[in-house]
Amino acid sequence: MKRHRNGEIWNFESQTPAAGAGVILGLDGGTTSTVCVCLPVAMPPAGPLPNPLPILSRAVAGCSNHNSVGETAARETLQEVMAQALSKACSSRAAVQAVCLAVSGVNHPMDQQRLLDWLRDIFPSHVKFYVENDAVAALASGTMGKLHGCVLIAGTGTIAYGFTEDGREARAAGAGPILGDWGSGYGIAAQALTAVMRAHDGRGPQTKLTKNILDILGLSSPDELIGWTYADPSWARIAALVPVVVSSAEDGDEVANRILYDSVQELADSVIAVVRRLRLCDGGDTFPLVMVGGVLEANKRWDIGKEVINCISKVYPGADPIRPKVEPAVGAALLAWNHYIKEL
Amino acid sequence: MKRHRNGEIWNFESQTPAAGAGVILGLDGGTTSTVCVCLPVAMPPAGPLPNPLPILSRAVAGCSNHNSVGETAARETLQEVMAQALSKACSSRAAVQAVCLAVSGVNHPMDQQRLLDWLRDIFPSHVKFYVENDAVAALASGTMGKLHGCVLIAGTGTIAYGFTEDGREARAAGAGPILGDWGSGYGIAAQALTAVMRAHDGRGPQTKLTKNILDILGLSSPDELIGWTYADPSWARIAALVPVVVSSAEDGDEVANRILYDSVQELADSVIAVVRRLRLCDGGDTFPLVMVGGVLEANKRWDIGKEVINCISKVYPGADPIRPKVEPAVGAALLAWNHYIKEL
Repeated sequence: MKRHRNGEIWNFESQTPAAGAGVILGLDGGTTSTVCVCLPVAMPPAGPLPNPLPILSRAVAGCSNHNSVGETAARETLQEVMAQALSKACSSRAAVQAVCLAVSGVNHPMDQQRLLDWLRDIFPSHVKFYVENDAVAALASGTMGKLHGCVLIAGTGTIAYGFTEDGREARAAGAGPILGDWGSGYGIAAQALTAVMRAHDGRGPQTKLTKNILDILGLSSPDELIGWTYADPSWARIAALVPVVVSSAEDGDEVANRILYDSVQELADSVIAVVRRLRLCDGGDTFPLVMVGGVLEANKRWDIGKEVINCISKVYPGADPIRPKVEPAVGAALLAWNHYIKEL
Repeated sequence: MKRHRNGEIWNFESQTPAAGAGVILGLDGGTTSTVCVCLPVAMPPAGPLPNPLPILSRAVAGCSNHNSVGETAARETLQEVMAQALSKACSSRAAVQAVCLAVSGVNHPMDQQRLLDWLRDIFPSHVKFYVENDAVAALASGTMGKLHGCVLIAGTGTIAYGFTEDGREARAAGAGPILGDWGSGYGIAAQALTAVMRAHDGRGPQTKLTKNILDILGLSSPDELIGWTYADPSWARIAALVPVVVSSAEDGDEVANRILYDSVQELADSVIAVVRRLRLCDGGDTFPLVMVGGVLEANKRWDIGKEVINCISKVYPGADPIRPKVEPAVGAALLAWNHYIKEL
């Protein structure tokens, strides 16, 4: 364990017992916030997991996507949130047995390697590390730590990520709005804004989206949407318009319905591509299909999540839809715990 | 004429004759550069214009789109380029009779009003001002200053802008990439990048775009396109991939061909929407269709501009395609000159 410039983060350790009970850390690092949970190593290694899980502590911090805030800020956030979780659990780095860091923006083995090297520098040498894309934590949150099946995330962004039981993996989408994540919240909202512009200038049909979107944004003309859109490049700000699109579709607006049906197909296509490549459903096998994110969670008449499941089930009847009962950070911790138990 | 903080821009005027011959300024302000030309008022008010035009001077500066660089920087650029053009023409503000400022980012009467107020503050009170979107200068560059017909611009962005002879105007598209300018250079390239991601993760068919785009960017895998794309938010950098899409289509790639045909339809739809709203082609009237921008100027086997004209002509046979022989800043100057002569 080397000294860090910001070593004061770890000062609390001088007041914790030298050899506490072993713990596991699970981190879910997104573009909005980062969550770290601490679990005890001592859970029954076979049979059902304790319910509720004996979560020792939970800490929350800001964004840890290095593409968004830069590498230095991302690492400081990760270090702080881990220190906070350990401090709240009255534990210390000496007690840590395994860490699973699941962060958005990990798209390449190089991203993974850099984070692994950095973790090794912070923790004692015996600690096991797992660095993954945050989609993997979401999958594990639905399967209680088992890496098998496919997860579909559709919030501001979207990605499908799958694992076979023998460790092969595949992903689809997750490349952001410029590279065609049309089923994401951002994609749905951008298509709705586009439909308003097209109705306004005569390229497209009239739509209730015009009045509904202008009302909610307090604007008086579609021309003002241009200024509104480019005033702030935040993807989440655009994606926040999804509920207006859903309510317009529920109101019978054809343009809004078309956008939602297209997005359902896009989201289903991502899952289908992953399942096909991994042969998750060969010979009628069933596989967990974990569904996560605001776009899939709307419990309204127009239920995007339900439509996506229908669409996938027509191609792969073995899809077993799961809405996770624990958060992704817990999924990450269970994943680290599973790995650790197996390696023992 | 008030004093300005940056009044030293105008110091050269103390060395120019108190009452020089009357001049006209035309400005074309884009996101990349701003051009100002100076024409003499004394040209024959009827009959054909002199050929070549007696352009007194030409000055070039950087970006003057206030959405892109902010209002202060945009105005400094505009003031500097006007001062430079007058200084090169051995003229001064006292000789200016009319100014046409055609700048990108003027989307709303409020944008127009702010620039008019600012111009009034710089020039003597008798000067006539015309503030327009830069598309208007492009139209005037094809019609030699007459505001009639429709211009289609397709470079990094795209817009269609039209005027009737009695002064009604309409536009379509021009709302940037988030709001659906799919026929633009940026739109074409973003669709190509998306097609590469879809081929890579199994959502879409294989395409020659993959090898061709990775080769030109020096990348080894489509995964690396994510980092490349979001490393720099410049739209022009993405749009620079259009020639790869065109050459892939010429090579027979179906995905690239589909993207180009869809973009042709998008571009034609913009013009058709404007012509329909303005009734430019009622009763078989002909109207000037001015075509401007890199996307429309490719003189290859796959000629996007030619295909767009074909597409429009099927709906409006009266479209009379024009490729401008002068630059948009000259169009702006001719527009100011025409207005000025009429008002005399």
